Amino acid sequence: MIFLALGLLLLTARVLGELARRFNQPAVLGELITGIVLGPTILGHLAPRAELVLFPTTGTQADVFRGITQLGVVLFLLVVGMEVNLSAIFRQGRVAVSVSLAGMLAPFAAGYALALAAPAMLGMHAGADHQVFALFFGTAMSISALPVIAKTLMDINLFRSDLGMVVLSSAICNDLIGWIAFAVILGLAGLSAGGGDHPLGDSVLTTVGLTLLYITVALTAGRWLLHRILPWIHAHLSWPGGVLGFTLSLALLGAALMEYIGIAAIFGSFLVGVALGDSYHLRERTRAVLEQFISFFFAPLFFASIGLRVDFVQHFDVVVVGTVLLIACAGKILGCTAGARFAGMAPRESWAVGMAMNSRGAMEIILGTMALGAGIIKESTFVALVVMALVTSMLAGPSILRILKRKRVQRFSDHLSPRGFALALKATTSTDAIRELAALAGPAAGGDARVVADAVLEREASMPTGMGNHVAVPHARLPGLVQPVVVVGLSRAGIPFGAPDGEPAHIVVLLLTATDDDGVQLELLADVAATFKSIAARTQAEAVGSYTEFLALVRTLHGIEPSRVENDTR
Amino acid sequence: MIFLALGLLLLTARVLGELARRFNQPAVLGELITGIVLGPTILGHLAPRAELVLFPTTGTQADVFRGITQLGVVLFLLVVGMEVNLSAIFRQGRVAVSVSLAGMLAPFAAGYALALAAPAMLGMHAGADHQVFALFFGTAMSISALPVIAKTLMDINLFRSDLGMVVLSSAICNDLIGWIAFAVILGLAGLSAGGGDHPLGDSVLTTVGLTLLYITVALTAGRWLLHRILPWIHAHLSWPGGVLGFTLSLALLGAALMEYIGIAAIFGSFLVGVALGDSYHLRERTRAVLEQFISFFFAPLFFASIGLRVDFVQHFDVVVVGTVLLIACAGKILGCTAGARFAGMAPRESWAVGMAMNSRGAMEIILGTMALGAGIIKESTFVALVVMALVTSMLAGPSILRILKRKRVQRFSDHLSPRGFALALKATTSTDAIRELAALAGPAAGGDARVVADAVLEREASMPTGMGNHVAVPHARLPGLVQPVVVVGLSRAGIPFGAPDGEPAHIVVLLLTATDDDGVQLELLADVAATFKSIAARTQAEAVGSYTEFLALVRTLHGIEPSRVENDTR
Repeated sequence: MIFLALGLLLLTARVLGELARRFNQPAVLGELITGIVLGPTILGHLAPRAELVLFPTTGTQADVFRGITQLGVVLFLLVVGMEVNLSAIFRQGRVAVSVSLAGMLAPFAAGYALALAAPAMLGMHAGADHQVFALFFGTAMSISALPVIAKTLMDINLFRSDLGMVVLSSAICNDLIGWIAFAVILGLAGLSAGGGDHPLGDSVLTTVGLTLLYITVALTAGRWLLHRILPWIHAHLSWPGGVLGFTLSLALLGAALMEYIGIAAIFGSFLVGVALGDSYHLRERTRAVLEQFISFFFAPLFFASIGLRVDFVQHFDVVVVGTVLLIACAGKILGCTAGARFAGMAPRESWAVGMAMNSRGAMEIILGTMALGAGIIKESTFVALVVMALVTSMLAGPSILRILKRKRVQRFSDHLSPRGFALALKATTSTDAIRELAALAGPAAGGDARVVADAVLEREASMPTGMGNHVAVPHARLPGLVQPVVVVGLSRAGIPFGAPDGEPAHIVVLLLTATDDDGVQLELLADVAATFKSIAARTQAEAVGSYTEFLALVRTLHGIEPSRVENDTR
Repeated sequence: MIFLALGLLLLTARVLGELARRFNQPAVLGELITGIVLGPTILGHLAPRAELVLFPTTGTQADVFRGITQLGVVLFLLVVGMEVNLSAIFRQGRVAVSVSLAGMLAPFAAGYALALAAPAMLGMHAGADHQVFALFFGTAMSISALPVIAKTLMDINLFRSDLGMVVLSSAICNDLIGWIAFAVILGLAGLSAGGGDHPLGDSVLTTVGLTLLYITVALTAGRWLLHRILPWIHAHLSWPGGVLGFTLSLALLGAALMEYIGIAAIFGSFLVGVALGDSYHLRERTRAVLEQFISFFFAPLFFASIGLRVDFVQHFDVVVVGTVLLIACAGKILGCTAGARFAGMAPRESWAVGMAMNSRGAMEIILGTMALGAGIIKESTFVALVVMALVTSMLAGPSILRILKRKRVQRFSDHLSPRGFALALKATTSTDAIRELAALAGPAAGGDARVVADAVLEREASMPTGMGNHVAVPHARLPGLVQPVVVVGLSRAGIPFGAPDGEPAHIVVLLLTATDDDGVQLELLADVAATFKSIAARTQAEAVGSYTEFLALVRTLHGIEPSRVENDTR
């Protein structure tokens, strides 16, 4: 039954995750909804017996399922840690520290004060220590989510900008401080809840001291040592087994050590990830294997399992949700914006930094899960934290675009359609090829194929559009076009398009854009050129047997471009 | 504690696996010994309390551990299935069928007959059905291990030869028939043990019929359908999340279905792997992610866990081990050799085929685990099967080499040493560079650097050894050299070596081989050229800061060459 449960969760998470992406939302949204649909919230009401058989809450299967999701979150934090680039913080220095400190202190102070004043309203667990609850609540308000932030910046083409660098380094700094603070709080919580049977004794000082010691050692000597061990592993052990086995067992042993100290296991693997992450000796392919398998197997299972624990409808408390959302957003946005202004950034950019840093993503959810498990918060607060995490993540992208008056990056594959595809062009001259493709583009471009053909031919006459590398990109601007139109035609024989390398074109991409939208045309032209840059890509494109195969190829080519990190959707 | 147990197992398995590879043995050997060392056989005797805390046999942690290793073997069989290439069997046709059928029938008949005659001696479980035990024993004798066989062929450079193709297709055919037979036997065993509470009723016909139906559908309609769905997934879902999520959930659901029918879950994922495996739409990178993570995380945990179950010393029965070894080896080797002869192969090649097919590797161990779990065999038989699997896998490589009078493939990185490495050559001419490198090579080559330099310079004078691509390979043959000597020197400025592309050499590799060993020199020359073929490889090599970094780079470059499948060590 465990395989059925795991398979169903993974499949549903994938389907809903894809749906979420279709609407430009993080995949974690779909994965969480998976648990809500298959868990007590929906399936539990519709078919309680099926839900209980699939996802029992007690017994061997429940234990195994919990074990696998725990292993999943420990490994996921390894991958998250690997994305933390300590060197980047040092480089950005002043701005990053200013943004992240102000962006943490403001929401922390607001959250901490309110939690001290009104613990019952915010859903403090009956058995929890008042101070611990207030400290946790403040931390929960002040945390960020590096992976979601990175993905948002990529989507809106700001990843490599100055603004992007500031936001990323601030988020890294924020993550690091936030998680360390939370680790210490969990240590306090465990002790206040009566950690008397702990092997290391019940002194707060011991746990907190050991935690800080582990963190310091991991980030200094550990980091230094790993940077030296990795080349040795590559040199003397098998590849890639040596480095994969080493990294994964280190993460598990780090988790075990943190658990032994009395802190949640995830911090152990997180710090191993941070220590490993910015060593350039960890090769891209090793990273890819770890990130992809963990992000698409363990992480979906973990996030889906969250929805299985709690009835999201029953524990939805409007007051708690509203308060949490308000404090979290106001504190974080205002704090970060103030920090950016203080460090000398322009007002508009400062607001954009504030909006970007507001994403809470998967991190908030993991933190909430831990606090729920440690008996610090009630279900209602947990639900509020999850909702806040999702809402802030969904808002970040659109709000930055609006502030900076930017648009999402266009890729030519976004505009492909089966109707706008000719597997084998009949034309043997560029003029005929343009007429043939214009006939396909006509309907989408407003009706008249002749108008399209004339505009493209006029442009072609001024300068041939053969780009070399077997690719030609005839194009034109048309008035009144709402969306770009892209039509693709392939030719085995090749069609002369006046390319600089003298070769005929085998892949002809016709691009039509609106008269007043200058940037998009250049973006699409550059995208076509980049996509078919490599010989392998062209050879495969020329050999496809159908529209679907062509689209599949282009999508894959786009996916593996090193500038895109496809797994960063949490 | 579960993280400590998993981390320790993984680390130890890695270390022992690397040791096994050092002696040209399959990694699975090291992984099994891990369990023997950390389990009841050794740690259990030395420190029973530690062993019980780490690897308890009852309770929540034991359940979770068992769940994770079960998940591991299910996913491992997905990867194994992906390596089965159905099209290859069709292509090789007659020979493959002849070898695999004769190679299965002979050991099956011998095993089946003996098990019928003397079940007690062979360790039949008290509660097992006599017929089921005999069928199982025959099947256990007749199974092969595709991954180990593939790895052995690669190691001795026969993978792409005609002989290699015959062996591989026979092994694929053998695997497929063997596993299907075993699935049916397990179904029979479950029923004879009283499957009355099974949801589908207790008719043998139902279970066996459904199993055969699932197999047929998976390998015909399922395979056809997957080949069409994969391009659609690439075209319309995110990459690589879409295809990874789809593949993994399909494997889990296949496992769940097989379990529901009443057969072990692993067959479900195995068949999903087979159905997916030979579709060229499953891209290399997706395969790599699945294979590497599963082979280096789940598989070591599973194989190490086997040693944890049984005390290998206590249950080692010389009679059972000897009988099993004898029947397995004699039946398989004679059967396959006869099959190859019958299909028209030469005697020497036929014997090589027989020796290659004799590897049982990981497959036999999985089969034994299932049979032990299903109550068909006793621990003593299980231990005998494991020992037989290891011995046959260790024998295959050396015995083929002896029969065909071949040697292992040499790579120039096998002969690198810190003493034979110059990070920055002082020389500015090829003559000086050769003298400088000869001085480093002297001690290893028998003492006299001048003799070495003269021999290499003489060779260089006849034709310059600049290969182009910034690489030069001065070389010479010396009398009385036992091992090839390889010395590497780097030069930032570059040294003119008369390369066809006119560029100076930045990477100079001096090769010395024995006078009478012609093949090795060519092998090493070709290897150097292939290693530094790509611009990226050369650029990285020219920028290394130490010998270890250079070795690490070369090892990684060798590891990622598409012709090597590094994970195939089971």
